[in-house]
Amino acid sequence: MGKRTFPLSKVYGLLEPGPVLLVTTARRGRPNIMAMSWHTMMEFTPPLVGCVMSNRNYSFGLLKASRECVLNIPPVEIAEKVVGCGNTSGATVDKFARFGLTPRPAAQVGAPLIAECFANLECRVADTRLVASYCFFVLEVVQAWIDPAVKNPRTIHHRGHGTFMVAGEEIKLKSKMK
Amino acid sequence: MGKRTFPLSKVYGLLEPGPVLLVTTARRGRPNIMAMSWHTMMEFTPPLVGCVMSNRNYSFGLLKASRECVLNIPPVEIAEKVVGCGNTSGATVDKFARFGLTPRPAAQVGAPLIAECFANLECRVADTRLVASYCFFVLEVVQAWIDPAVKNPRTIHHRGHGTFMVAGEEIKLKSKMK
Repeated sequence: MGKRTFPLSKVYGLLEPGPVLLVTTARRGRPNIMAMSWHTMMEFTPPLVGCVMSNRNYSFGLLKASRECVLNIPPVEIAEKVVGCGNTSGATVDKFARFGLTPRPAAQVGAPLIAECFANLECRVADTRLVASYCFFVLEVVQAWIDPAVKNPRTIHHRGHGTFMVAGEEIKLKSKMK
Repeated sequence: MGKRTFPLSKVYGLLEPGPVLLVTTARRGRPNIMAMSWHTMMEFTPPLVGCVMSNRNYSFGLLKASRECVLNIPPVEIAEKVVGCGNTSGATVDKFARFGLTPRPAAQVGAPLIAECFANLECRVADTRLVASYCFFVLEVVQAWIDPAVKNPRTIHHRGHGTFMVAGEEIKLKSKMK
């Protein structure tokens, strides 16, 4: 699939724009997938990502037990599969099989990478202080992969109730911001 | 300016897509503005928003002292002003005057709304447990305003180092997700 390792110091540029993610987790060799929009960068290096995973999601128990996950960034071409993952539960559905998504072994965590996503961020749970109050996990990205052929990724961005914005044109401005 | 009050239960649809925000704060009648991309929804109702405001920013002290701010969502038409706010410090610059932005009184907080932004979310600090570790504040949105004429907002989304993605087309998929 032509993925290359990606510098951890550049991970923020993938997540800051707010793409819908597919989060993979695994327990006892059985992987799951969920869709997620509630995430934010928290630190550049090592990259820390904060995210809310509701305890009504099957993945919540897997993340809590394994303390590992992968944040996969899907392009608009697989938007129907993303919504399918969001509409079903791993308690009863093998989402890889149901939606024709391909698991690949990660380098440092037990959860799989999704081959059809153009970027994959292997994560370990770094802080659970806000899990009880808000189901908010702080993750550390320990390994990142990217498809170098994707220059202006057409990510999808949730606006609620099945409405999504697709990433449009790229503009450059004279910013001193990192 | 034709802004209308906006239901708090719909605020998540504005922030989930990951737009760059202009955050306003105020202290002793003097307001400031900063650009921010590190934010996430944390709860639907009342809407909670988590965000990282670095303690290297002048706004950090204002937010910590006042415990109030406004999250303003700028459209691409004022992208140059947004980057200007990101490139300067409120310690030495009156950003409203410098960049020709218009402060308007908020209803419930001391920080001003920015008239040129199509949405304005008045917030109070709700949780500071992760401020010492990550400069991460949990905010509660207490009042929301929107320009009802803006249907498919052309928000900007930071990809790092002055590169921004502009919100593109809107698509609808059969999602059961909220």
